[in-house]
Amino acid sequence: MKSVVMTIGDELLIGQVINTNAAFIAQKLNSVGIEVNRMITVSDDESDILRTLDESYNTSDVVIITGGLGPTHDDITKKTLCKFFKTDLVADAGTRAIIEGFLQQRNRVWSDVYEEQTLVPRGCIVIPNHHGTAPGELFEKNDKYVIVMPGVPYEMECMMNDFVIPYFSGKSTDKVVLHRTLKATGIPESLLAAKLGNIDEVVRGSKLAFLPSATGVRMRISVVERDKQSAAQKIKEIESRIRAKVEKYIYGADDEELEEIVGKIVTQRKLTLAIAESCTGGMIANRITNVPGSSTYFERGVISYSNKSKIEILRVPQSLIDKYGAVSKEVAEAMAAGVRSISGTDKPVGLVWIGYSDSSSTFAMKFHFGNDRLRIKEYASQSALELVRRKLLKIEF
Amino acid sequence: MKSVVMTIGDELLIGQVINTNAAFIAQKLNSVGIEVNRMITVSDDESDILRTLDESYNTSDVVIITGGLGPTHDDITKKTLCKFFKTDLVADAGTRAIIEGFLQQRNRVWSDVYEEQTLVPRGCIVIPNHHGTAPGELFEKNDKYVIVMPGVPYEMECMMNDFVIPYFSGKSTDKVVLHRTLKATGIPESLLAAKLGNIDEVVRGSKLAFLPSATGVRMRISVVERDKQSAAQKIKEIESRIRAKVEKYIYGADDEELEEIVGKIVTQRKLTLAIAESCTGGMIANRITNVPGSSTYFERGVISYSNKSKIEILRVPQSLIDKYGAVSKEVAEAMAAGVRSISGTDKPVGLVWIGYSDSSSTFAMKFHFGNDRLRIKEYASQSALELVRRKLLKIEF
Repeated sequence: MKSVVMTIGDELLIGQVINTNAAFIAQKLNSVGIEVNRMITVSDDESDILRTLDESYNTSDVVIITGGLGPTHDDITKKTLCKFFKTDLVADAGTRAIIEGFLQQRNRVWSDVYEEQTLVPRGCIVIPNHHGTAPGELFEKNDKYVIVMPGVPYEMECMMNDFVIPYFSGKSTDKVVLHRTLKATGIPESLLAAKLGNIDEVVRGSKLAFLPSATGVRMRISVVERDKQSAAQKIKEIESRIRAKVEKYIYGADDEELEEIVGKIVTQRKLTLAIAESCTGGMIANRITNVPGSSTYFERGVISYSNKSKIEILRVPQSLIDKYGAVSKEVAEAMAAGVRSISGTDKPVGLVWIGYSDSSSTFAMKFHFGNDRLRIKEYASQSALELVRRKLLKIEF
Repeated sequence: MKSVVMTIGDELLIGQVINTNAAFIAQKLNSVGIEVNRMITVSDDESDILRTLDESYNTSDVVIITGGLGPTHDDITKKTLCKFFKTDLVADAGTRAIIEGFLQQRNRVWSDVYEEQTLVPRGCIVIPNHHGTAPGELFEKNDKYVIVMPGVPYEMECMMNDFVIPYFSGKSTDKVVLHRTLKATGIPESLLAAKLGNIDEVVRGSKLAFLPSATGVRMRISVVERDKQSAAQKIKEIESRIRAKVEKYIYGADDEELEEIVGKIVTQRKLTLAIAESCTGGMIANRITNVPGSSTYFERGVISYSNKSKIEILRVPQSLIDKYGAVSKEVAEAMAAGVRSISGTDKPVGLVWIGYSDSSSTFAMKFHFGNDRLRIKEYASQSALELVRRKLLKIEF
């Protein structure tokens, strides 16, 4: 089955909001064998919506639409859908009950603004919204499907997970598309490609794409097969040919983040972790604590922005700062050793000198990351986590 | 002038990469009076690219394309553009020199993979890339423009800022579109709309859009006028009618983030700031240190994940934790007072109890943010920053 993802909203077209919905929807559709052929963003304008919907409906099996279902005057998607399917709006008792429950839970009272939200296009299947007041809708006609959901990411995501994906997962498809992404860091795209050599020999008829970003290069393997088993087998073979050549740089696969990998390693070895940061300003600790279960190994973090705090909390000698400056190998090492000693942990990291200290060694490495504040924080937090991974796994630098 | 933003890449269609480029390009085009009417994402497929380019070229004045210019086998955009404009590739000496300089700066050597990158379509204007090896291209024909840039965000952003925007800013347009966004937090969308009352009376012919997110509700005012001055005047009038009704909830406008606003307030009052965090795990400090100049007022942060660290670094009495638990009003207050006392700062914050302490008062407020880890961190960091803003500006809660 082929699909088009239509996201509606002037906020997208003026660049005020980044379109995260389209990517989320595409991932989910892929997981039940529905391919996304196009993503289109149009304005909250009736004729634009109708033209794009018509074109998308005629060239695909599934059209997924988000946005423009809110309670305010600029939301016109529901009425426009009625026009497209030549139907009208009717009150839906189930939707009213859900909205009443939603408001009650949050100690909010019913107001006129919610009356409009209880109306749905006649003949559609209502998709319940348990996290907001706008219901979703599914239209089925001649084996084609149009699905409309709110633009608020969390509400849309719950509807996809709880309703849309279960709805489509029963329907059969004739081929299976599988993707697997290997994530590398510490090497530029062109060198990684050169190390892999002849790509055709690596993929043998399948596809390999390189996706560089601030935190590394992802290599995405894509295979198309008749069934899941042979697709999985083919991916396994390609992956092992890639790993044979560039294993060292690969820290994880698919959705795995470096902070998760580091968390797993630390947990397996029954270690604890503490962080002393300076220029990254909490970004490393923030990433570490994004991982569920991190409270079992993450002991504490110190963001020693001022010299005073480096001296007081991390016990960095004043003389070291005076002699070498705050951004130096010596101070980074002292910060790492300091946070380790005050917290009684095994693996601490300090920073754009990245220091490391465990029971057998203390050292610091120097990194240059350009001059853009947010990029420095991104690069440095990625490099610090990678340093812990390689050190613990005894991978050379 | 009207435009279409075309982003090319299978990684976008399978949802692996979130499309941040389209939003960035739209913001920039808007700033020189070019409206974006559509954003379209298509795959790295020649016929898909040609069909979409043809359609976009015929319905707009400017087509901006990103993606598929890299050095690897899956990058086909440059060749496809040659096909569209019926031209061929020629070696460009200027591009070769830039790539050589780029490699030299990074201690990397020339390899065959870069030969391909020195080729550009005959007849185009070359857009230099100082942050990567793929040049951009600009085609001008019958007052229509097609611009192609790499998909790597930072490379594309620099080309937009240094070349594309200066190129178009001279060209005249017959109307001016101005936007202004007021950012509110601590109130749901429907209540905010209800407090504003009759929207038509507020905007008087212009447009107002409500954009809810995890960190608040943005209200976007859009006006279309003949010249910049009358557009600015109209926005000013609408803004003052909105502020008259919901001033209290508005913390900033347009690109202003709450952490910037808090930074400005703290700076004006010559205060310093320290943070003690627990469940937000560094996200608040991370946001604070995203602001240039924050090192002048941000003294330190402590992420006291373990009880031990709360007791040792923040001097929270063990008895308080035993009696009330780590997630309690009492411990949040003690964390705030603790980080303030050890750092000698004026305004500390601890956390989903959010504690506050300054020279005249210490207190804590209770928040419930559902059960999604990343959402809790987002909500809680937003609420903590908002608490500081309101307390310092003496705005009631």
